[in-house]
Amino acid sequence: MDKGQLLYEGKAKRLFETDQSDVLIVEYKNDLTAFNGEKKAQEQGKGALNNQISSILFERLNREGISNHWLEQLNQTEQLVQHNEIIPIEVVVRNIAAGSLAKRIGLKEGRELAFPIVEYYYKDDDLGDPLINEDHIKLLNLVNQSDLNQMKEMALKVNDALIELFEACEIKLVDFKLEFGYDRSGQIILSDEVSPDTCRLWDIHTNEKLDKDVFRQGLGSVEHAYKIILNRLKGALSHG
Amino acid sequence: MDKGQLLYEGKAKRLFETDQSDVLIVEYKNDLTAFNGEKKAQEQGKGALNNQISSILFERLNREGISNHWLEQLNQTEQLVQHNEIIPIEVVVRNIAAGSLAKRIGLKEGRELAFPIVEYYYKDDDLGDPLINEDHIKLLNLVNQSDLNQMKEMALKVNDALIELFEACEIKLVDFKLEFGYDRSGQIILSDEVSPDTCRLWDIHTNEKLDKDVFRQGLGSVEHAYKIILNRLKGALSHG
Ligand SMILES: Nc1ncnc2c1ncn2[C@@H]1O[C@H](COP(=O)(O)OP(=O)(O)O)[C@@H](O)[C@H]1O
Ligand SMILES: Nc1ncnc2c1ncn2[C@@H]1O[C@H](COP(=O)(O)OP(=O)(O)O)[C@@H](O)[C@H]1O
Ligand SMILES: [Mg+2]
Ligand SMILES: [Mg+2]
Repeated sequence: MDKGQLLYEGKAKRLFETDQSDVLIVEYKNDLTAFNGEKKAQEQGKGALNNQISSILFERLNREGISNHWLEQLNQTEQLVQHNEIIPIEVVVRNIAAGSLAKRIGLKEGRELAFPIVEYYYKDDDLGDPLINEDHIKLLNLVNQSDLNQMKEMALKVNDALIELFEACEIKLVDFKLEFGYDRSGQIILSDEVSPDTCRLWDIHTNEKLDKDVFRQGLGSVEHAYKIILNRLKGALSHG
Repeated sequence: MDKGQLLYEGKAKRLFETDQSDVLIVEYKNDLTAFNGEKKAQEQGKGALNNQISSILFERLNREGISNHWLEQLNQTEQLVQHNEIIPIEVVVRNIAAGSLAKRIGLKEGRELAFPIVEYYYKDDDLGDPLINEDHIKLLNLVNQSDLNQMKEMALKVNDALIELFEACEIKLVDFKLEFGYDRSGQIILSDEVSPDTCRLWDIHTNEKLDKDVFRQGLGSVEHAYKIILNRLKGALSHG
């Protein structure tokens, strides 16, 4: 698979064309950004860790019947994915109050939610990725209602699958953000990444944060935290 | 009807008990607040104008079959209403992009929406009345799903009725905020107020703002603007 032209560079990844029109190479970068790009840094090894972690998670989700864009891990920092047309909605699933939910509705961080809640954010950096509702989605024509329902259903399935996997790693899945896209045949598939950059992950015993909040809140070494996630995932998979 | 104890004083109104336990006197104040209480002022005559305008609107909605708390106008600044248990959700209906919607999803102020959109805000001053979705409402146990559906349906009926009435006044109904409550028998009824403090109203020809944005944006005399609304409503009713 030849690496072609740079198609798009985002905050955390670069997408490259390949000799197959519906296949891309995703390169995971060491860049970290938070607060809508206001806080920035680079951390050695972060890209490689997220590439490995998201490869493990996407492969697992595949085996659980949740179709996603991941095809194979190519090397330390790159993976092969299906090219798809991203739907500009960030789907957030939450099991425990943290971050903007805790602030928005006045819950204490760490409070377990009675059921997983789903939120939609408009993927638009200029607008600061605002929370939106189903009427906003319809008005902006971001996706039709039945596809939105499918995205929500898939997001909740991802939640079930990841809760189980992370439980085996002694990690609480606090919340996470997903992106979906249309593949060539018009099917909705899970895309983008699933990693400690896009999930909140806490140690089950100590509540130690093992995700991008380490960077957001200046709590220590991102590499150290993400390495714990990767090692526990490897351990869980070799036992499971 | 005797005026009893002050039950509650809010930013725009005072509620007094009466000798009937399920009936309150609402006194409309001259106070104006905006930006979650950060901007404050008093404007002579504002309370009386809103009392008259909301009496006209509630009476009209009653005749259109939309049950609401309004019973009768008592005097310049007071009206009699049914006491009810307010549901802490602000239901906003929008026909034209303005205010926080224009900002949130990047629409130009004044753009007509393809269909009326409905938003829910958590009525909580400390949290700044945040936008919430149906999962948040369920999590916070603010109201059950079927009552929420009924509130949405009623809000859209209010929209239809008010669009028609204001059209006869040569006024565009841009958007408005409603509150609902449970009456004694557990029925959901429209409560609080419907006035230029809670609606955006623009002259149909000039787009002149005739609502609280006159205060928010420092555009001139609130009394002047609200008087235009009252006079046009009186004119429309005497012809209709
Ligand atoms: N399979 C895919 N096909 C097309 N685009 C994708 C795919 N997976 C992810 N993307 C997009 O790649 C871009 C780069 O990712 P990222 O660096 O995380 O960007 P951002 O700065 O928007 O978060 C994002 O816009 C993401 O939606
Ligand atoms: N019929 C009613 N029964 C009980 N409470 C009501 C009724 N109508 C309005 N209210 C409440 O009266 C309070 C006073 O109104 P207002 O001054 O507008 O308050 P706020 O500062 O909360 O906007 C509000 O909390 C409103 O929800
Ligand atoms: Mg991203
Ligand atoms: Mg009020």
